[in-house]
Amino acid sequence: MGEERYHDKHPFHQRLVAGSLSREQVQAWAANRYYYQKQIPVKDAAILANLPSAQHRRVWIERIYDHDGREGTRGGTQAWIALARATGLEEADVVSERYVAAGTRFAVDAYVHFARTRSWVEAVASSLTELFGPPVMVRRMAAIVERYPWIDPAGLAYFETRIPLAKRDAETALQWIVAEATTPELQDRCVAALRFKCDVLWGVLDATALSSGVFVPA
Amino acid sequence: MGEERYHDKHPFHQRLVAGSLSREQVQAWAANRYYYQKQIPVKDAAILANLPSAQHRRVWIERIYDHDGREGTRGGTQAWIALARATGLEEADVVSERYVAAGTRFAVDAYVHFARTRSWVEAVASSLTELFGPPVMVRRMAAIVERYPWIDPAGLAYFETRIPLAKRDAETALQWIVAEATTPELQDRCVAALRFKCDVLWGVLDATALSSGVFVPA
Repeated sequence: MGEERYHDKHPFHQRLVAGSLSREQVQAWAANRYYYQKQIPVKDAAILANLPSAQHRRVWIERIYDHDGREGTRGGTQAWIALARATGLEEADVVSERYVAAGTRFAVDAYVHFARTRSWVEAVASSLTELFGPPVMVRRMAAIVERYPWIDPAGLAYFETRIPLAKRDAETALQWIVAEATTPELQDRCVAALRFKCDVLWGVLDATALSSGVFVPA
Repeated sequence: MGEERYHDKHPFHQRLVAGSLSREQVQAWAANRYYYQKQIPVKDAAILANLPSAQHRRVWIERIYDHDGREGTRGGTQAWIALARATGLEEADVVSERYVAAGTRFAVDAYVHFARTRSWVEAVASSLTELFGPPVMVRRMAAIVERYPWIDPAGLAYFETRIPLAKRDAETALQWIVAEATTPELQDRCVAALRFKCDVLWGVLDATALSSGVFVPA
């Protein structure tokens, strides 16, 4: 699934790491992805509400802290805003969501809705794109540092913090899924959930590419 | 709003009426739009559940019959399937939704979710794209007959039936909105709802264009 459908295969992402995007296109990426980042803890809270035990909730609740931050610390959403500012965007413009394409919103909202309405096993399975994330984040960071020297590297702290957390989260989620999805039918639903999530990430890049001139009429 | 954002301004639609789409691209349009058609009565049932009176429901319920058909008659969804077959698609492929792009699903599902969760006034306002539809449907029909002679014109019955119904529906909905949206704040919400619906229709064509090679990497 990751080999075929993870969003590092998307033409927009390939241009990002190749260094061929304009400043405005990189900004479109940061601004659109902000909406995804902002909705991650909303999605995790929706999953939290469906988990079957105190033990599951105690583990999953860490994800919400990771993105929202604890009192007095900076979480992932703030770190993403810092990255967006490092691309030259104003924080007020980012949080106003004025640069978020409608297609980004449709895709991200579908993810939150999926987390709210599907079984917790499917919702957790949809998070397994994090299995594919860390090596992609490492390459993306290196590419940004090398190919977009006008981006302050301090803005990349989001990825530095995120890489070990994504590994930890993916391992836990995979353990849960392997333990729970013991029938072919459940396993198929988990695979479908992961495919759905790949479509969400791909859809965010489709909308970003369309709104920034990376995709054009043939 | 219609002048700027209705989906007849979308590059895919412009090519449809110009006659420059391939058979596969016209099929992609019919197959993707099928998912929108199929969800219209679901959306209308969601609105029905939020309407404030028996009189409102009595009027709105007609829309569900229009798309689902009454016992023994063919509704809009079946008429759309006939159109898809006239483009050369197999009915089984259409109803399997195998050609529906993920982005189409995200956009259409956002519309159903909007109808479920917003006030009935906003949900009805979002349907007002039907104010713009009839003249566009007339031009689209004429273009299809003239420029895609391989499509059996009998397949266009959907539009013939739909044009007078869309006029009637739009007039009723507009009367309700004018009567209800009596404050600037409510009026702004209705305009935002209509903009949202334009984004939905535009998003369906974005996804159709991306999946059929009408949009490509620059």
